[in-house]
Amino acid sequence: MPVSLHGIAASNGYAFGKAYKLIEPDLSFEKTTIENSDEEIQRFHEAIKNAKKELAKIREKVTNEQGEENAAIFDAHLLVLDDPELISTIENKINEEKVNAESALRETTDTYIQMFEQLENEYMRERAADIKDVTKRVLAHLLGETLPNPGLIAEETILIAVDLTPSDTAQINKQFVKGFVTDIGGRTSHSAIMARSLGIPAIVGTKTISSTIQQGDNLIIDGMNGEVIIHPTDEVQEIYKEKMTKFQAQQAEWALLKDEPTISHDDHKVELAANIGSPQDVESAINNGAEGIGLYRTEFLYMESTSLPTEEEQFQAYKVVLQGMNEKPVIVRTLDIGGDKQLPYLELPEEMNPFLGLRAIRLAFEKIDVFRTQLRALLRASTFGHVKIMFPMIATLDEFRKAKAILLEEKEKLTDEGISVSENIEVGIMVEIPSTAILADEFAKEVDFFSIGTNDLIQYTFAADRMNESVAYLYQPYHPAILRLVKLVIDAAHKEGKWAGMCGEMAGDPNAIPLLLGLGLDEFSMSASSILQARSQIKQLDQKAMRKLAEKALQLQTSEDVKKLLETEVKATK
Amino acid sequence: MPVSLHGIAASNGYAFGKAYKLIEPDLSFEKTTIENSDEEIQRFHEAIKNAKKELAKIREKVTNEQGEENAAIFDAHLLVLDDPELISTIENKINEEKVNAESALRETTDTYIQMFEQLENEYMRERAADIKDVTKRVLAHLLGETLPNPGLIAEETILIAVDLTPSDTAQINKQFVKGFVTDIGGRTSHSAIMARSLGIPAIVGTKTISSTIQQGDNLIIDGMNGEVIIHPTDEVQEIYKEKMTKFQAQQAEWALLKDEPTISHDDHKVELAANIGSPQDVESAINNGAEGIGLYRTEFLYMESTSLPTEEEQFQAYKVVLQGMNEKPVIVRTLDIGGDKQLPYLELPEEMNPFLGLRAIRLAFEKIDVFRTQLRALLRASTFGHVKIMFPMIATLDEFRKAKAILLEEKEKLTDEGISVSENIEVGIMVEIPSTAILADEFAKEVDFFSIGTNDLIQYTFAADRMNESVAYLYQPYHPAILRLVKLVIDAAHKEGKWAGMCGEMAGDPNAIPLLLGLGLDEFSMSASSILQARSQIKQLDQKAMRKLAEKALQLQTSEDVKKLLETEVKATK
Repeated sequence: MPVSLHGIAASNGYAFGKAYKLIEPDLSFEKTTIENSDEEIQRFHEAIKNAKKELAKIREKVTNEQGEENAAIFDAHLLVLDDPELISTIENKINEEKVNAESALRETTDTYIQMFEQLENEYMRERAADIKDVTKRVLAHLLGETLPNPGLIAEETILIAVDLTPSDTAQINKQFVKGFVTDIGGRTSHSAIMARSLGIPAIVGTKTISSTIQQGDNLIIDGMNGEVIIHPTDEVQEIYKEKMTKFQAQQAEWALLKDEPTISHDDHKVELAANIGSPQDVESAINNGAEGIGLYRTEFLYMESTSLPTEEEQFQAYKVVLQGMNEKPVIVRTLDIGGDKQLPYLELPEEMNPFLGLRAIRLAFEKIDVFRTQLRALLRASTFGHVKIMFPMIATLDEFRKAKAILLEEKEKLTDEGISVSENIEVGIMVEIPSTAILADEFAKEVDFFSIGTNDLIQYTFAADRMNESVAYLYQPYHPAILRLVKLVIDAAHKEGKWAGMCGEMAGDPNAIPLLLGLGLDEFSMSASSILQARSQIKQLDQKAMRKLAEKALQLQTSEDVKKLLETEVKATK
Repeated sequence: MPVSLHGIAASNGYAFGKAYKLIEPDLSFEKTTIENSDEEIQRFHEAIKNAKKELAKIREKVTNEQGEENAAIFDAHLLVLDDPELISTIENKINEEKVNAESALRETTDTYIQMFEQLENEYMRERAADIKDVTKRVLAHLLGETLPNPGLIAEETILIAVDLTPSDTAQINKQFVKGFVTDIGGRTSHSAIMARSLGIPAIVGTKTISSTIQQGDNLIIDGMNGEVIIHPTDEVQEIYKEKMTKFQAQQAEWALLKDEPTISHDDHKVELAANIGSPQDVESAINNGAEGIGLYRTEFLYMESTSLPTEEEQFQAYKVVLQGMNEKPVIVRTLDIGGDKQLPYLELPEEMNPFLGLRAIRLAFEKIDVFRTQLRALLRASTFGHVKIMFPMIATLDEFRKAKAILLEEKEKLTDEGISVSENIEVGIMVEIPSTAILADEFAKEVDFFSIGTNDLIQYTFAADRMNESVAYLYQPYHPAILRLVKLVIDAAHKEGKWAGMCGEMAGDPNAIPLLLGLGLDEFSMSASSILQARSQIKQLDQKAMRKLAEKALQLQTSEDVKKLLETEVKATK
């Protein structure tokens, strides 16, 4: 047995405990032909009913123990079981093909799962996991089996599984389950998100943990480094206990900063905001001390849906976010679809290079009704909080002017209809295309703010697909060319009395924060879970010293040069 | 009947004449089973032999009338007929399937043609045309038919055809054939290239010319505008005669500039060079007054071949180009494969965004032996002329340093082997990735020269695939963001005493030339056929005035702003 195993760090923290392997019951079955399809359909409905009952129970337990937010996914599961198309497809299969309910169910849901899994989009692939989970539950009821119930665990354990379904994680009782490790999954899979939300360490994607570990093995997990230590010696145990103590002290210290402003050691104020994807994320943003929402990715609203969300549905979502943030600024990015993000109900042309294709604002101009509907919903919601509107993938001033003109048209229409709209909506753009960074001085005369999207900006500046392993070496956030573009944008904004933020991954990277502070960035938008650490870091930094550091970095030649500078100088100035 | 028809302008000039429709013989046949496959194979070999004889005859005629350059394609045809794999596949088909030679031939070549046509690459699609042409010729011999022979035309005519095969165009006698018009083809199809080489006007891609026009119809063709005038009135005839006279006078005037230097009205000297794809293009470069080769695209050497070209084959090609240019500078760009350019014999990974993937220098680092072989061939050829070596798709200084180090390693190896290598090889880079333009000041300390590749630079700067119709509006060469990048590169070069050229399409665009001259560009590399016009234009321009113009353009906001500036001011300063 190895002494340790590595996986993807999915949620921070340390945990100690005995391995508890979630053993699945045998859900295999034979495909059989049946005589009486009415009876079989009856049996199927019975199983659905029981699965729903069970889901409702789990939902309630989770709501009580962990709050509405975590329980929401069970609504998605219940919705699957309420899907008339799915149910009638299975019923027809039983009726017409005279097969048993088990195989009608499995074959039908397999088609859905396959379809979702083939999509390039990670979010849609996660939908496949939901359907799998529901299928398993109904199948267990059909076969008279009981799914394992992590809720029954009553000693300090670390859950080990091939994968944890959303309902598995939902049943986790934090008092006993101290962390979990799985064979599969990534940082954005449901289980990983749930772990972060529960605040327990987790490691996913270890590939082999479920086959390597025996029930009851002594384990330590290190959620920062994605490491599982198996049968630790007393000495190792001591080392990790100490690490955990330090970690907890740090967490406690950071928690004190929740309602503090973000001010550097030499009194330079910046704003730390959260990136969110749905109204459910607002709570976590608030709990982690976000001073606003720097990026609300509205595309999830479209991607979660099986048809275009209506103006009313969108209005409700935006209103919830705005009210939830209670007058703190919320930057709503208009629909950013295309590229790797597809909508099953919106037919888009096949493109040879989707990242260089009809994406985001370009697509909005093509699907102008979809765009106008979103703008109307946003404008209607604008009186419920402090909204700012941001257009993605703007490459030319013409595009910005066109988008803004459409926004103003919709605003006028609403006003004519007697619907009140906020008069103070800032309208800004994502800076994620090189042309826009290069011409930032001209843009700054017309936009209200910039938010730099580093993920795309880096990929286009180096002409290297950030999803392509072969050219991964060209994803260089620290490269002087990127720093120069960031500087161009920030200086251009300040010259016109505007502000510049950043909502790419770089903004929450502790190694990049000193540089960005030095470059004069006004707003840093990141995962909610990174905010408190960033605030703590900035409080210890001297902005003037970082400015000098940034000036040096801008004169360097390679990413390595910049990294070396940061290694030596940031420590020195602390 | 319409009075005129439009197509793609493929070769400049005006022509008057009667329509001569190239009527194809009926080459249809039945698929039959044969008894004696030996006899059938014998019949097949007989047809091949006769086709070869015929091709050799055409080849000789073309060589005498038009020179070696135009005759070279028949070597490609003869090579097809000598391809042992192709021949043996057909023989085996006759033997094993007992089918007649006609169908064995057609089915086999169809597979090849389909394969080539499916490739995204225009050049490879043109290869399919070669195989089609050869198949038709062999088929005609099998069926006892005679292919039409444009060489027999004996009055002033304009050839009309669905498509002209390379052997059709090769038989054209300029004394009688004054131009041609086809239904299909593009600016880079063989027939278009041949027309430019013959110096006769041509229009391709009209879609309907062959069905619209009757044998003997009176026609005028306008090769600049891609227009065919059908049954022109005397008045129209007069107008076009006048246009032709002016055109010819202009051509004659430009021809006087062939051996002149390129000097602006106020004595600012620049260099006009040609972009070439093969040793055959050297003659046209010289004839059009090129002061050097600004871009030798070596990938055609690889794309024309069915396996990797050997060091010796490459050495011979490079040597021919260098000797042909007779000590004038030749910038050889190392292998630029990947993206839309694929090699059938070099397996590359499928990529989601090939334009942002493993291309050019990135691929060279992966296929390091292929890269080293090319560099060795280049270094060996270096003593036969004035070579400069240029690396494509350089995004970081690390990449340039790595490529140059490999070059120096190969040079040292050759020197150790006692092979002489030029000591004065400039080593430069393409600037086609935004990061490189942005960091041009640092690059200029290490490279010997820059050549700006506008096609890619524009596509990456706006994050818009230049082959994708939906985002074609973002291909904006005149956009201030592009002009600023060009200026960064030129200024950076000059500050370090280096030079900057441009080898993208923009360099040969008469509308862009005043701006580029004003931005300080040192070398303009373009299609050979654009050089004389560009020289004539530059001689009339005042570089100091253009510098002021460029300064204004850099302060503008949109492409439209720049175009308007050029429209008003360039005319005013002339």
